[in-house]
Amino acid sequence: MYDENGEKYLDCINNVAHVGHSHPDVIKAAVKQMELLNTNSRFLHDNLVQYAKRLTTTLPEKLSICYFVNSGSEANDLALRLARQYRGHQDVITLDHAYHGHVSSLIDISPYKFNQLGKEGKKEFVHVAHSPDIYRGKYREDHPDPANAYADDVKKIIEEAEKSGRKIAAFIAESMQSCGGQIIPPAGYFQKVAEYVHKAGGVFIADEVQVGFGRVGKHFWGFQLQGKDFVPDIVTMGKPIGNGHPMSCVVTTREIAEAFGASGLEYFNTFGGNPVSCAIGLAVLDVIEKDDLQGNAIRVGNYLTELLNKQKEKHPLIGDVRGIGLFVGVDLVKDQLTRTPATAEAQHIIYKLKEQRILLSADGPHRNILKFKPPMCFTMEDAKLVVDQIDELLTALEEATGARTGNGRSTTAQHKKKMINEGNSQSDCIGESINHINGTACRQKNGLYTDNRTVPCKRIRT
Amino acid sequence: MYDENGEKYLDCINNVAHVGHSHPDVIKAAVKQMELLNTNSRFLHDNLVQYAKRLTTTLPEKLSICYFVNSGSEANDLALRLARQYRGHQDVITLDHAYHGHVSSLIDISPYKFNQLGKEGKKEFVHVAHSPDIYRGKYREDHPDPANAYADDVKKIIEEAEKSGRKIAAFIAESMQSCGGQIIPPAGYFQKVAEYVHKAGGVFIADEVQVGFGRVGKHFWGFQLQGKDFVPDIVTMGKPIGNGHPMSCVVTTREIAEAFGASGLEYFNTFGGNPVSCAIGLAVLDVIEKDDLQGNAIRVGNYLTELLNKQKEKHPLIGDVRGIGLFVGVDLVKDQLTRTPATAEAQHIIYKLKEQRILLSADGPHRNILKFKPPMCFTMEDAKLVVDQIDELLTALEEATGARTGNGRSTTAQHKKKMINEGNSQSDCIGESINHINGTACRQKNGLYTDNRTVPCKRIRT
Repeated sequence: MYDENGEKYLDCINNVAHVGHSHPDVIKAAVKQMELLNTNSRFLHDNLVQYAKRLTTTLPEKLSICYFVNSGSEANDLALRLARQYRGHQDVITLDHAYHGHVSSLIDISPYKFNQLGKEGKKEFVHVAHSPDIYRGKYREDHPDPANAYADDVKKIIEEAEKSGRKIAAFIAESMQSCGGQIIPPAGYFQKVAEYVHKAGGVFIADEVQVGFGRVGKHFWGFQLQGKDFVPDIVTMGKPIGNGHPMSCVVTTREIAEAFGASGLEYFNTFGGNPVSCAIGLAVLDVIEKDDLQGNAIRVGNYLTELLNKQKEKHPLIGDVRGIGLFVGVDLVKDQLTRTPATAEAQHIIYKLKEQRILLSADGPHRNILKFKPPMCFTMEDAKLVVDQIDELLTALEEATGARTGNGRSTTAQHKKKMINEGNSQSDCIGESINHINGTACRQKNGLYTDNRTVPCKRIRT
Repeated sequence: MYDENGEKYLDCINNVAHVGHSHPDVIKAAVKQMELLNTNSRFLHDNLVQYAKRLTTTLPEKLSICYFVNSGSEANDLALRLARQYRGHQDVITLDHAYHGHVSSLIDISPYKFNQLGKEGKKEFVHVAHSPDIYRGKYREDHPDPANAYADDVKKIIEEAEKSGRKIAAFIAESMQSCGGQIIPPAGYFQKVAEYVHKAGGVFIADEVQVGFGRVGKHFWGFQLQGKDFVPDIVTMGKPIGNGHPMSCVVTTREIAEAFGASGLEYFNTFGGNPVSCAIGLAVLDVIEKDDLQGNAIRVGNYLTELLNKQKEKHPLIGDVRGIGLFVGVDLVKDQLTRTPATAEAQHIIYKLKEQRILLSADGPHRNILKFKPPMCFTMEDAKLVVDQIDELLTALEEATGARTGNGRSTTAQHKKKMINEGNSQSDCIGESINHINGTACRQKNGLYTDNRTVPCKRIRT
């Protein structure tokens, strides 16, 4: 990216410019169609059919019906409408810290947002399940089976809701939580959740708005990391789908679509699926394939995670490194033992990086997770550059605060000397007693830079 | 418009292709910005500021804060969020037959949609006011003061709601109801409604998604037809704003925006206000000005309405012709006296027109209103062509059904011979006893093809 003065920036965060800023193939497709015809979807156009066909080939067979809309928010809102119409149920189970969009119905199911409104924020029909975070969550890397433990949490929620006469319409989750802190759910979790939700008459909505379109590398969709035996009932897509062009999509099964149609309410979306949007969508799929961007995500993603894991050995401020392809999170902690989020430190780093013309963000409930989601053309050199800078910044920070370096351990006392303002730092999430020796051992076994290790605690491998 | 075989169609309905299909200036602006940079609005860009400045110059001064979003639905949803945050009120007053968008929160306030769901469709916080339709509504052209009468209806709704302890957040209405049947509210109605709604602590939302951007000719916005003394608190924009590009906007006052900001909830919209959308928006405003499309809307709109009014003298199937600029409706009736909607006849006409390569639609609760909302470059010749075809079709229909022609009167009995399937025809809307002599006199006085007449029943003049 370049600013208005022509200064060059390394973009590590823009998952919207998925195949690269201003990719010429995408622009060419846009212009060609704009010059010919752009109109609303009351007029049938071949592009719509071609794009739907092409997009559904990336998905399991039963996901065959596409609704084209304009934003991730429109997609998730429609997904809820589909889910509620399906059996007439109303309640929604969502993950803690989840963000699913900015329209009213999605603020309601986004704890990331409604928690800011105090106790009144959560509506009665919303049920919040623990985020399947095996580093900071209720069940951690030392738990023998976190996937089942987190799924049992959802099962209990369903049982409680049904006891009160409520009925579950949907479980919704990002295939990997992004704003929630770059959380990669343990394999097998979605299968179990889907089993319980289906029994309750609900559907499973996989939100791929931030993480889809090959970002995870070896699969096209994030939910596919869970295994071939898992297929969501509804998948929502957005941000990267048009490389910046406002478009998005909901894909579902024929059964759910037919139940929606049976309501008699016509669904019409003025801009959704217009010929230009579909031409752009097709071009993005072409570029992902032609430029082998999934292969690049595997190669560069593995390298980036490897570099970051080396930093983890060196810097006590790095509590956890987790990543799949070009979806990577670095959890900064003030203390390895208590895992107190290093919020101010994370903010310090992203501001310092910006001064050095590297764009990175910090997210998660404590805003202490460095969040990598670069355009998919990110290179080995780009990875090296940003990690080297982070190394320097962490070293300077640790020297200033007196944190020990070298053995990956520090004490809370040492951090009392910290020189920077803590800002929104919170520490109310650390409540679980865990076995840190086992935990560390497990994390080491699950180093994300290798592809062939045994993974006893079921963390998904790159 | 051209179909896939190169066949030419006259487009009388596409208000999205506002400045003309594939306008070269708009494409040029899009390409120029696409080649340079398109990214999400976490990155500030001059286009956003320039477009906001330019757009607000078309509006009264107090409407100074813009939120850029991606569709009319996103705009109206955000408008509701702004309204509810303003004083913490929740209830919404909407007009009968209104349509405000496809996301959950807007289906809730769109009788055009929720009425199809039966009695359960209407939520408790929604209050439906009579549509200010002086041809088919509760108070008609023979009423001495329909503006005040319809506004009093809103006043009563507020009083009833407050008696039940409910609080009004907003009154929302299209400045002219489009799906509702091309309804032009009598002048002074919005002022009175705003007065009552403000007293209740609510805000007035003018939905300009279908009718804004110069369509009415002598004003840039539909609400301005009500007079200079009326300014809404929130204006929503959509369809024509980007000539087909998915974009939209909410404009409000500083006071309302500040109350929204004070909630602490950040509002973020990934695609909203991106540099390409803003460049396109600016280009559309340029073309409207450069090509004098408002002037064209006045000239061609007046001519179209004049031609249609001549048809009304001739054809008993035409009950009412109403129009402002290039927003025109023709209300087809089976009987001038009872005003029974001629639904099947309207469908017959639009299908026959399509065979003749003219695109027109029928809308309203009975789908009997021929709805003109062509691209703003519509010409005198286009107007003549479509009206001549309608003339021929009406003549053939009337001959087939035995309706008398020439004096604008027919009897219900004559229509019993009608040859075409009535389809969804309904007649449950005709309940008011009216003085037809006065009514006709008033309509004649208010012939929309002149600009300088006295308008005793306050129908807005072109």
